[in-house]
Amino acid sequence: MRIAVLLYPDFTALDAVGPYEVLARMPGAEVVFVARRRGPVRSDLGSLALTADAALDEVGAADLLLVPGGPGSTRQHEDPAVLEWLRAVDAGSTWTASVCSGSILLAAAGLLTGRRATTHWFGPEGLAAFGAVPTDERVVFDGKYATAAGVSAGIDLALHLAGRIHGDAVAQSIQLVTEYDPRPPYDAGSVATAPPAVVAALRANGLVVRA
Amino acid sequence: MRIAVLLYPDFTALDAVGPYEVLARMPGAEVVFVARRRGPVRSDLGSLALTADAALDEVGAADLLLVPGGPGSTRQHEDPAVLEWLRAVDAGSTWTASVCSGSILLAAAGLLTGRRATTHWFGPEGLAAFGAVPTDERVVFDGKYATAAGVSAGIDLALHLAGRIHGDAVAQSIQLVTEYDPRPPYDAGSVATAPPAVVAALRANGLVVRA
Repeated sequence: MRIAVLLYPDFTALDAVGPYEVLARMPGAEVVFVARRRGPVRSDLGSLALTADAALDEVGAADLLLVPGGPGSTRQHEDPAVLEWLRAVDAGSTWTASVCSGSILLAAAGLLTGRRATTHWFGPEGLAAFGAVPTDERVVFDGKYATAAGVSAGIDLALHLAGRIHGDAVAQSIQLVTEYDPRPPYDAGSVATAPPAVVAALRANGLVVRA
Repeated sequence: MRIAVLLYPDFTALDAVGPYEVLARMPGAEVVFVARRRGPVRSDLGSLALTADAALDEVGAADLLLVPGGPGSTRQHEDPAVLEWLRAVDAGSTWTASVCSGSILLAAAGLLTGRRATTHWFGPEGLAAFGAVPTDERVVFDGKYATAAGVSAGIDLALHLAGRIHGDAVAQSIQLVTEYDPRPPYDAGSVATAPPAVVAALRANGLVVRA
């Protein structure tokens, strides 16, 4: 199975690498990271770059298309080459998937019209603006379209995909290889459980964490 | 706070990027990825490279040292330049941390002698061979040494570190920004909960997932 992961400046690294670590372990998986140009693509926090091994025009098809999110995703809404590439790869994909604001980019490309989808809790309105139907679930499947909530939700999404593609035993094996037995020291990963002051500060600061 | 993340060929990407996504969001964090040489360093699955922005001799100190694991880590046990660099940075660090087999590399550098530590479930004997005291906990603190179990456990480790360094509200804020409200579709992330056939197959296949 050919898997293409889109990279663009100011993507969020874990959006891409979380699902990658799961999907690339599926039997027969061949993953390629793709960007406007080959070479390093810097993520949103500035201190990490991932290498794109292929340019957009070098990857015309994929069985699974994965689009990460991040603060740079909105700039991609204005890039016809990216939107056209997403539409072209999606036309032949078995699965089209996203993490975080990657779903809004898919919607901007016209691929989620009328479909249920999810995104980061901070900005669901972007989905509706492009004709998708926002939900606040962590992982949403609507036909071949699989969308995840913010950042770390891509790991859960990828395990769901692995199970649908290869069955439970393969997905469970990947979960065990990656020792994904999460034990966060706090129960603050959703707006429903985080302390209200934490939610309010992040809303006010545009997700920048302050001391 | 200066944070140095070691990269080497055949590291496991999520070991580094999971904690990075948390730690780099701490107020005042300055992260640098470090390797033998500057430039792209390919991870174990072959299809992803992260950029090292500094060579070992360009980073002489860090407040927090993070060592990811991966199948390439054992080769680093034989590299005097890497072992010396680890000892030198550790000598001035406030925290020295690892994910997965990164703890065995720290132990090989002589940094965990007599200390409690954890690693991936697949290979705890390496810790004891280098004088550490293996445990099967997900995150272990012993003084300034913080070690995590396999791959995804680095995210939990990093939230623990963020809480100790900046307090609960900052750590909770980062958990909410990264929407770390894990919902794996299976309960197979530890040898205690995974189906016995899954555990047995991975032990037999050296962690390679087969269909």
